[in-house]
Amino acid sequence: MANNPVLEEALELKPRYDRDGLIPAIAQEASTGRVLMLAYLNEEALRLTLATGNAHYWSRSRKALWRKGETSGEVQRVLAVHIDCDQDAVLLTVELEGRGVACHTGRKSCFYRRVEPKSGSLRMDASP
Amino acid sequence: MANNPVLEEALELKPRYDRDGLIPAIAQEASTGRVLMLAYLNEEALRLTLATGNAHYWSRSRKALWRKGETSGEVQRVLAVHIDCDQDAVLLTVELEGRGVACHTGRKSCFYRRVEPKSGSLRMDASP
Repeated sequence: MANNPVLEEALELKPRYDRDGLIPAIAQEASTGRVLMLAYLNEEALRLTLATGNAHYWSRSRKALWRKGETSGEVQRVLAVHIDCDQDAVLLTVELEGRGVACHTGRKSCFYRRVEPKSGSLRMDASP
Repeated sequence: MANNPVLEEALELKPRYDRDGLIPAIAQEASTGRVLMLAYLNEEALRLTLATGNAHYWSRSRKALWRKGETSGEVQRVLAVHIDCDQDAVLLTVELEGRGVACHTGRKSCFYRRVEPKSGSLRMDASP
């Protein structure tokens, strides 16, 4: 994008939500650096995440606010929240509670399938 | 989301593009684990990324395909491409060429501002 110092150097939080009122959030595990998942925040989810220190997301499929781990026990304790240069993406640095998995399939990370460049088919990663 | 084994265990690449034909892509630096940026792929950008091994994105602001580094020299060499459980997000594992920065502001990562939980104001990270 073009440079926009007002946006890029500002120290005021002004998330640029999309037309559905959402902003994508990456969850990364602090201790391992693994990228765990990508989910979405609305204004309320971001507010609750900051206020409680536990990740809250907006579930697009269920159209509901979702405190991560509320049913599964797989709570994400948030150590840091970063926002990007143009304030339209968020990075959550988290530690996992419960069994230590972020994916609803029971895997640590949602990114467990690798795309083979040549064939375009998928291959399961060895790491869980 | 609810379990959907057909989607989650499939070894066929079927990205679920949004209504604009885009899928969010996280770029993570292989050597450091740092999350560098979040950008978007359309079908052509994903195809070119897989075919060439260099990250291509769709610029939403310029409405154009964008070979990362084509003007800046900050090419992203793609070591791995992963897709998530519900095939609506991509993770690119990359190494940076050029000066080794991913952000157009000249910083390594776009996530250089931390949100203070109490005040909601932003603070620049010490690391570049």
